[in-house]
Amino acid sequence: MPLIVLDGIDGCGKSTQIELLAKRLEALGRAHRRLREPGGTALGEAQRRILLDPATKACPEAELFGYLQARAQLCREVIAPALAAGEVVLLDRFYFSTIAYQAYGLGLPQPEVRAAIRLATGGIVPELALWFDVDPAEAARRRARARAGEDRIEARGLDYLRKVHDGFAEMASAGEMVRVDAGLPPADIAKVVWGAVIPLIG
Amino acid sequence: MPLIVLDGIDGCGKSTQIELLAKRLEALGRAHRRLREPGGTALGEAQRRILLDPATKACPEAELFGYLQARAQLCREVIAPALAAGEVVLLDRFYFSTIAYQAYGLGLPQPEVRAAIRLATGGIVPELALWFDVDPAEAARRRARARAGEDRIEARGLDYLRKVHDGFAEMASAGEMVRVDAGLPPADIAKVVWGAVIPLIG
Repeated sequence: MPLIVLDGIDGCGKSTQIELLAKRLEALGRAHRRLREPGGTALGEAQRRILLDPATKACPEAELFGYLQARAQLCREVIAPALAAGEVVLLDRFYFSTIAYQAYGLGLPQPEVRAAIRLATGGIVPELALWFDVDPAEAARRRARARAGEDRIEARGLDYLRKVHDGFAEMASAGEMVRVDAGLPPADIAKVVWGAVIPLIG
Repeated sequence: MPLIVLDGIDGCGKSTQIELLAKRLEALGRAHRRLREPGGTALGEAQRRILLDPATKACPEAELFGYLQARAQLCREVIAPALAAGEVVLLDRFYFSTIAYQAYGLGLPQPEVRAAIRLATGGIVPELALWFDVDPAEAARRRARARAGEDRIEARGLDYLRKVHDGFAEMASAGEMVRVDAGLPPADIAKVVWGAVIPLIG
């Protein structure tokens, strides 16, 4: 314990913040583990290659079930044992992405998607879920500057990412996630993140 | 139209019957298509290799979502267009296998599994679902005689396959499937199958 999720669209800066967070935990000598979705297991990494490959032909439902397959295996093979062993688990994306990208973004029905998510996670809910709120156009500029290639999902363009962004915003409004202003300088964001994490790690 | 499913445990003889059925439709000049689950699309065949590989480490939920991913893609990319074009679709396994192998066999909760199946199929239900009822011990003897290797699922042994068999039997009792006595000689089974198919193909 605890499970801490950092989520948001590509280019929101969550990878940088996970890096900084891991270093602080390292400095404190606190056992921790960094994981990403989809991935973290042999099955999940195989599914990651399929899902992000621009050549893959997958309908929205097949895309959903791919993410759920990777998540189910990660929860049982890695996350649950790590939490049981007292580790801090830092997770780059979790089911919030599924709700944002596949329900809000692709239009899959949210109640059914959430029911399937519960089956995949076995009910694991993070102690803290941070949403890195960046404007999709700004995120696209950042990715272009970083010369980051577009995967199958991000290649859907700005209109799609605006719907995804709305999904994250709704979850933050509902209290499922904590909004972090990802337009701030990285050092300032790190302070906000650390302030939210400290109460959880004792 | 129509969609005809042949299902049951490995060694029940459904592949032989699909072959014979396809030949009869061929002789009648009736447009038809043979498909198998998991498979039938690039995504589905990739998932098939993962799911049946004895080296794959997959929890029951990950296994479920793998089959659902393959099915979702097959339904939208192949089955729905073929039915719309008036073809007869012969399908080797469908969601009945998921209910038998993953719900009855592995103990996943049936209501949640059925809800996820509906999301995967988009509500496609076959006009005819035949269950080839063979005793699991007899099926194992047949597979041994045929020197058929065991995949990851069949390697679970007889106790598991008895639960799967019970699942198919329950679906037949509930009227979801039509039971065919798979202990009869293949030519006799073919007559029973053809008798069930004739009213559907006009």
